[in-house]
Amino acid sequence: MDFTGDAITSQGVVERRFEVGGDGGPVPGLLWTSEGAAGSRPLVLIGHGGTSHKRSPYVLTMARRLVRHADYAVAAIDAPHHGDRADALDASALPDGRAFRELVAAGADRMTGDWHATLKELQQLDDVGDGPLGYWGLSMGTMLGLPLVAATPAIQCAVLGLMGTFTDQDPWTIAAANLTCPVLFLLQTDDELVPVERGIALFRAIGSPDRRLHAHPGRHIAVPREEMDASEGFFAQHF
Amino acid sequence: MDFTGDAITSQGVVERRFEVGGDGGPVPGLLWTSEGAAGSRPLVLIGHGGTSHKRSPYVLTMARRLVRHADYAVAAIDAPHHGDRADALDASALPDGRAFRELVAAGADRMTGDWHATLKELQQLDDVGDGPLGYWGLSMGTMLGLPLVAATPAIQCAVLGLMGTFTDQDPWTIAAANLTCPVLFLLQTDDELVPVERGIALFRAIGSPDRRLHAHPGRHIAVPREEMDASEGFFAQHF
Repeated sequence: MDFTGDAITSQGVVERRFEVGGDGGPVPGLLWTSEGAAGSRPLVLIGHGGTSHKRSPYVLTMARRLVRHADYAVAAIDAPHHGDRADALDASALPDGRAFRELVAAGADRMTGDWHATLKELQQLDDVGDGPLGYWGLSMGTMLGLPLVAATPAIQCAVLGLMGTFTDQDPWTIAAANLTCPVLFLLQTDDELVPVERGIALFRAIGSPDRRLHAHPGRHIAVPREEMDASEGFFAQHF
Repeated sequence: MDFTGDAITSQGVVERRFEVGGDGGPVPGLLWTSEGAAGSRPLVLIGHGGTSHKRSPYVLTMARRLVRHADYAVAAIDAPHHGDRADALDASALPDGRAFRELVAAGADRMTGDWHATLKELQQLDDVGDGPLGYWGLSMGTMLGLPLVAATPAIQCAVLGLMGTFTDQDPWTIAAANLTCPVLFLLQTDDELVPVERGIALFRAIGSPDRRLHAHPGRHIAVPREEMDASEGFFAQHF
């Protein structure tokens, strides 16, 4: 694992940029820890949404609050085709339904491998270690998160949502059935991308007996701050 | 308002039985306050479910925890045909769909009047006063609670749920549209009495812009303790 560039410290939170060797090439990521952190602590992996990246404002907000309020370590990596891994792909076509879903599904195995490679490196750091592990990712962060969580028994709990089933055999419905850890699942009842009925269907498909759904009015991106609080409480309760 | 019988005190919570004169006859109720309570405080009204009554175990649990944890006053009254107001009605037929709904709808105006009469008396007590006011009621407690909350602007927030729409013009859907206060709405995704789609439809029909839905797997009566915690937090946040 190589740390690249200078660490940024702001209000007690240290942000370090790293690169890990993945099977499909270097994986660019960010690690947030508290200033002066020493010793093993819980680690939350954040999966960003479609057309977003590892340092999008809501990722940064979630990461910084988990460090400041709970002194966890938090990491985010760019998904294929996003952030520092952006390619010639026409980003404007991404949210366009089926083609986007197929693209994401095609990259899921690679992303799981990239997370595993990243995790292995992070857990060797003195100020991260192998403490409790959680995942937080909505929308594309759930499309890529469901296969990751299903394939990673060390993940003790996950916040997912803003995603629905499309067929009984789509990769997310299948992965959801293999989940066993506690889940907080978030939906928006006026979501223009995910009809609420499909979201409920995905929630019901989750194999974990310990799961809860929180839904609010409003569009896809309007998840209220209340659910950032709920996410924080959920991690605190399950770590 | 007449207090009847002796007050019961247990672990710092005083339970007093009362009777208030209602338009349709005496209204039997219970009031819970902390031992030695003096002065105005928040008041939560609890509406019990169908075939249940003002001292059913979950009503008692909710009331006692709100007194013990938050030092609120809490009151519950028997709905028509229930508890001390039980009549020759065949209770075993109550949960049976349409006939039950018609019976509850027919009693809604009376129940709202009974609550208003009760409220007027309670707010004159030195250890209740006219502090912040909330409502908590699921299932039939929502069927009777929606019209009450819609007709009672003093109610600042309400926990509702385990109920759905039946038609666009059913009395609950109409009352829901008239709500303006913050709402926490609870559903069970395996509810054998309320299909989750109908529950979501009722949540969406609520007029209050500030509303959130929490849902869990399990049957109608299996609302987990987590939502008792959430209810308590919801009241604390909105009082």
